[in-house]
Amino acid sequence: MGGVIVTNPPKADAKDVEALAAFGVATVSEAMGRTGLFGPEIRPVQQGVRIAGTAVTVLSWPGDNLMIHAAVEQCGEGDILVVTTTSPCTDGLFGELFATALQKRGVRGVVLNTGIRDTQELRDMGFAGWSRAVSSQGTVKATGGSVNVPVAIDGQVVRPGDVIVADDDGVVVVPREKARETAEKSEAREAKEAATRAAFLEGQLGLDRYGLRDTLKRLGVEYQSYEEYTGAGS
Amino acid sequence: MGGVIVTNPPKADAKDVEALAAFGVATVSEAMGRTGLFGPEIRPVQQGVRIAGTAVTVLSWPGDNLMIHAAVEQCGEGDILVVTTTSPCTDGLFGELFATALQKRGVRGVVLNTGIRDTQELRDMGFAGWSRAVSSQGTVKATGGSVNVPVAIDGQVVRPGDVIVADDDGVVVVPREKARETAEKSEAREAKEAATRAAFLEGQLGLDRYGLRDTLKRLGVEYQSYEEYTGAGS
Amino acid sequence: MGGVIVTNPPKADAKDVEALAAFGVATVSEAMGRTGLFGPEIRPVQQGVRIAGTAVTVLSWPGDNLMIHAAVEQCGEGDILVVTTTSPCTDGLFGELFATALQKRGVRGVVLNTGIRDTQELRDMGFAGWSRAVSSQGTVKATGGSVNVPVAIDGQVVRPGDVIVADDDGVVVVPREKARETAEKSEAREAKEAATRAAFLEGQLGLDRYGLRDTLKRLGVEYQSYEEYTGAGS
Amino acid sequence: MGGVIVTNPPKADAKDVEALAAFGVATVSEAMGRTGLFGPEIRPVQQGVRIAGTAVTVLSWPGDNLMIHAAVEQCGEGDILVVTTTSPCTDGLFGELFATALQKRGVRGVVLNTGIRDTQELRDMGFAGWSRAVSSQGTVKATGGSVNVPVAIDGQVVRPGDVIVADDDGVVVVPREKARETAEKSEAREAKEAATRAAFLEGQLGLDRYGLRDTLKRLGVEYQSYEEYTGAGS
Amino acid sequence: MGGVIVTNPPKADAKDVEALAAFGVATVSEAMGRTGLFGPEIRPVQQGVRIAGTAVTVLSWPGDNLMIHAAVEQCGEGDILVVTTTSPCTDGLFGELFATALQKRGVRGVVLNTGIRDTQELRDMGFAGWSRAVSSQGTVKATGGSVNVPVAIDGQVVRPGDVIVADDDGVVVVPREKARETAEKSEAREAKEAATRAAFLEGQLGLDRYGLRDTLKRLGVEYQSYEEYTGAGS
Amino acid sequence: MGGVIVTNPPKADAKDVEALAAFGVATVSEAMGRTGLFGPEIRPVQQGVRIAGTAVTVLSWPGDNLMIHAAVEQCGEGDILVVTTTSPCTDGLFGELFATALQKRGVRGVVLNTGIRDTQELRDMGFAGWSRAVSSQGTVKATGGSVNVPVAIDGQVVRPGDVIVADDDGVVVVPREKARETAEKSEAREAKEAATRAAFLEGQLGLDRYGLRDTLKRLGVEYQSYEEYTGAGS
Repeated sequence: MGGVIVTNPPKADAKDVEALAAFGVATVSEAMGRTGLFGPEIRPVQQGVRIAGTAVTVLSWPGDNLMIHAAVEQCGEGDILVVTTTSPCTDGLFGELFATALQKRGVRGVVLNTGIRDTQELRDMGFAGWSRAVSSQGTVKATGGSVNVPVAIDGQVVRPGDVIVADDDGVVVVPREKARETAEKSEAREAKEAATRAAFLEGQLGLDRYGLRDTLKRLGVEYQSYEEYTGAGS
Repeated sequence: MGGVIVTNPPKADAKDVEALAAFGVATVSEAMGRTGLFGPEIRPVQQGVRIAGTAVTVLSWPGDNLMIHAAVEQCGEGDILVVTTTSPCTDGLFGELFATALQKRGVRGVVLNTGIRDTQELRDMGFAGWSRAVSSQGTVKATGGSVNVPVAIDGQVVRPGDVIVADDDGVVVVPREKARETAEKSEAREAKEAATRAAFLEGQLGLDRYGLRDTLKRLGVEYQSYEEYTGAGS
Repeated sequence: MGGVIVTNPPKADAKDVEALAAFGVATVSEAMGRTGLFGPEIRPVQQGVRIAGTAVTVLSWPGDNLMIHAAVEQCGEGDILVVTTTSPCTDGLFGELFATALQKRGVRGVVLNTGIRDTQELRDMGFAGWSRAVSSQGTVKATGGSVNVPVAIDGQVVRPGDVIVADDDGVVVVPREKARETAEKSEAREAKEAATRAAFLEGQLGLDRYGLRDTLKRLGVEYQSYEEYTGAGS
Repeated sequence: MGGVIVTNPPKADAKDVEALAAFGVATVSEAMGRTGLFGPEIRPVQQGVRIAGTAVTVLSWPGDNLMIHAAVEQCGEGDILVVTTTSPCTDGLFGELFATALQKRGVRGVVLNTGIRDTQELRDMGFAGWSRAVSSQGTVKATGGSVNVPVAIDGQVVRPGDVIVADDDGVVVVPREKARETAEKSEAREAKEAATRAAFLEGQLGLDRYGLRDTLKRLGVEYQSYEEYTGAGS
Repeated sequence: MGGVIVTNPPKADAKDVEALAAFGVATVSEAMGRTGLFGPEIRPVQQGVRIAGTAVTVLSWPGDNLMIHAAVEQCGEGDILVVTTTSPCTDGLFGELFATALQKRGVRGVVLNTGIRDTQELRDMGFAGWSRAVSSQGTVKATGGSVNVPVAIDGQVVRPGDVIVADDDGVVVVPREKARETAEKSEAREAKEAATRAAFLEGQLGLDRYGLRDTLKRLGVEYQSYEEYTGAGS
Repeated sequence: MGGVIVTNPPKADAKDVEALAAFGVATVSEAMGRTGLFGPEIRPVQQGVRIAGTAVTVLSWPGDNLMIHAAVEQCGEGDILVVTTTSPCTDGLFGELFATALQKRGVRGVVLNTGIRDTQELRDMGFAGWSRAVSSQGTVKATGGSVNVPVAIDGQVVRPGDVIVADDDGVVVVPREKARETAEKSEAREAKEAATRAAFLEGQLGLDRYGLRDTLKRLGVEYQSYEEYTGAGS
């Protein structure tokens, strides 16, 4: 089957990655027009951790972690390892030994569209992980795959060097060319949300703040008292 | 499509709600004859929190949180927001801004038959949430729906004003007319369970306490030694 | 339908169980040639707990916990209760009252291929549980089943007296005849992993440690610069 | 637990049921404002069959078909049996013997929020079925439940006497009070669809027929040539 | 990892297999006390076909069909190939070429706890298949496994030489030692069902035939008119 | 949110599409090195139909078919419509009216990473469909999206103008630049498979044809008689 290990992909600018690290996954996704999210089945193995970094991508055969070994050599300071398989798999392709090697290289965490193991050890050593499953199922090193090629996970394409932001809400990918713009828009969105928060705390309603009463009227949504409603037959 | 916002539904008596708040979800469901439970896929985003309150119901279009804005205005002290969608959806229809607005109004938490976001922020602010998914996927405000109409979630019907109890085990709904009776039966059940607990701690077996040896005999369940069993050919 | 309660199955040697208790689920499974694991859908209700013990098995009808009552009598010091149902079920067949009875008998925990309830109470009392679902759905005591017969869960067969090890990564079963051998192999594996960990901390790559560069070459995996790769047309 | 068998529920008018039988599930749901549908996991066991009838509802314990026996007595000409369980279940609660009894009574089919068996026999005898699963798993007759009480399936409430329409696309429930109105609206919708079909066959676009070009403009959707789009950086 | 290919397992008597072939999966499972069934997610790729034969079992690595090649040599007249993987997998491990080889050897069909491909070709050549998924995903031949060892699928253990019966309702395994007894009990059950069918066709109710009116009374299930029921408050 | 409708994307050469139409999905995927497949949850609504064509892609909001209307105008002779949503959705975004419009324009079928309806009508009119769900759930036309932009479905990226091949086994995408090469490799593969088929029909084993006996030996897979195997203790 071959496969390829790409050795020097372009990466998002480190300053832009740092800028994005200041925002939550929800904010970053909103700043990109509500795009970029991995689905809700990819969950963190720890609580209260947020990371941002540049993607090193891995495409592995199911039940096989050979290409993760190849990927470690391609990983460096500020990277996040992103692993998927050629077909659905929940095996534990990644555990504490890989985390040890990656942590030493300055890697910030791992996102697995498959299984993770040694979760307690990962929490103890402070290496952050997100995965589709927790599984101790061991793997072989028998079949080729690729490193640093574009991969598709849950409707998103991740290219090497793209920015990954991950927190308790999930994982979002920011194309490397849009890192700066997205950081700026995230900041603007946070400012807007702070204003909304303040308004809500003073009792303003979203209905009024966003002009939604007109929307409801246009859509034909009606207000009825309980008596009207039940009298109307339901 | 229209839709309707019902403005003054009857609610369970606050005293009965407080009484129910003393019991866990399992006890309340047992007290209602093992009914009223949402399914196991609706999970809390925090640990160790129990709430009870009166339901304000929302029926939204998938990917759309317009009707949650409409519902905020209908929410008040002691309510719990209950949100479902017209077809299956995991998007993050609810997050920290809504929680801010609701918390100010005295709302006790949210139960979503869809996705939730800003989970770390919700835990930080002490606003309790239960949901089918954790997702940052943002939403639009484009399609109508209803507030305070009966909704069906996982085999249960929730009407506005019904009592919701939620804890680490899940979510249960108590019809508003049965709130008092259910609180009383819950108390009786807890007393009975306390007696059982004490008996178990003294070594009594459920087989004896519940008279189950006769049941086993009637059903034809036999005791065999391992030798008999394996000699019997399995 | 009948069913049978087997009263005196052979059990793994207590010393071997203790030896296995020193290792994580991943290590034990690797030591058995990557076998023995329950699937990733059986999850702990607590974090940071590892237990090992001898299985008392239960085969119940869905929605019915009669046979768990029968099993309690068969449980003793060092056992772990393992429950499955004759068809898929997520109901809460096990809760705090059973845990009270079992804890008094020296039982170390429960593994349920169905639902568990009273999760907060179980955490509070320090009784460890793993399950396919968290559910308060109550049960009846109406239909027969078996205790201490072999059961199959997620591709694994568990016989009474086999060793169960469970931690944050999941659950593994060790055939009672292989307990000692598996403990020894687990120890050997841990030693090997310690050496690998040390090597990784000094910067050695898995590619070199495991001789994988040859594997990649044999499989036809090629190294390309980003320029070669993208120039090549992808 | 008790349970109740309700003996003489009101039913939708037979003429309205016949009127509804002329329309597909999609049309009927659209005529009710896109409501009333069971979810996509309830599938037919045959192809090319459409039925309409009045619901006789059953609420059973999982793995138990006692209440279906009780329901047979309540079934008559023009009915459709609708079965759900108190918690999720895929067992084969219904098969050819029940179908024989029901067919003799003039029942038109069965909708199961659980499993069905004897599917080939059902197709051979022309008794139509929709179910969540196909499973031969047999059942007991040990636990009570209810007949002809309202049940909730996939977000829909079905009351006895409501109209069920089922075809290859799934299942829809029409509240008995809305049967006539829905039949009329279905007819109007079919007429409208026939006009649209004719227009589409003449080459008119939905964009023009429904005035959607303005909608696209209002929403900010832009037309770009491929050159503009790729030159813009994607 | 090793693995083993067992070359001459005992098999159920051919006459008993033929006898079992006369009965449907539901009947055979009932005759074994409602046991032996694979779950409802294993479905046929054709309609209206029933087969019975002796199991040749395969335990493969996910994404790898090497051991199926090894198994072909072990297959002969009257066998059914039963394939599972060491962890969940939906890849297409089996297709038309394997079927060609097996059909020539007199094999009657295949049951896959994973994916199948070339479904149209299999139907055209009359080779029967049941599988968890339909998938064209190709495989490698890189990792060892076993042939003719006991495997566990969906709560059932299949040993080489056990009888497999499969039809539109699913798949059941009969331990080879129970083949004759199960065939006899299946015949008895069919006779009993024929009597029941005749009684139902004459209008007898299951309530009366099985004495269930007493059961309902004992369980506290009550009959109410609709007026009583709704007057009672629901 | 905006969104974009790309009007003139490049397309694979019609001759290459025709060439690919001669091969099954499994063959085409194998010819691309076992890549390009949509997952097994996207299933055909008819049996025995194979189509090949050039993709017109749609990215829609869940529960909204506005962008399919926009896409119709971009569709022409030899195209296949490929629809996905910004978050998971099973609603019936596509039915008979769309099929009527597309069939008139020479479109060959539709692949939906969401729901389809009017399945019987589609079969009757000979318009082929593949989808993740069958659902009558109707939609709105309220939120923007895109047409003819790259979309990711089940780990595959589909760009406008790429080739889609779909049959009973599923759906595969061929990048437009690789259409010719893939057709040629598919032909070579079919020739090779024909030779293998002939060899299998003459009784040759895959073990010998592919030299797998050495592989088994290298991997440490051993042959044992049943007596050796069971004597060895398992």
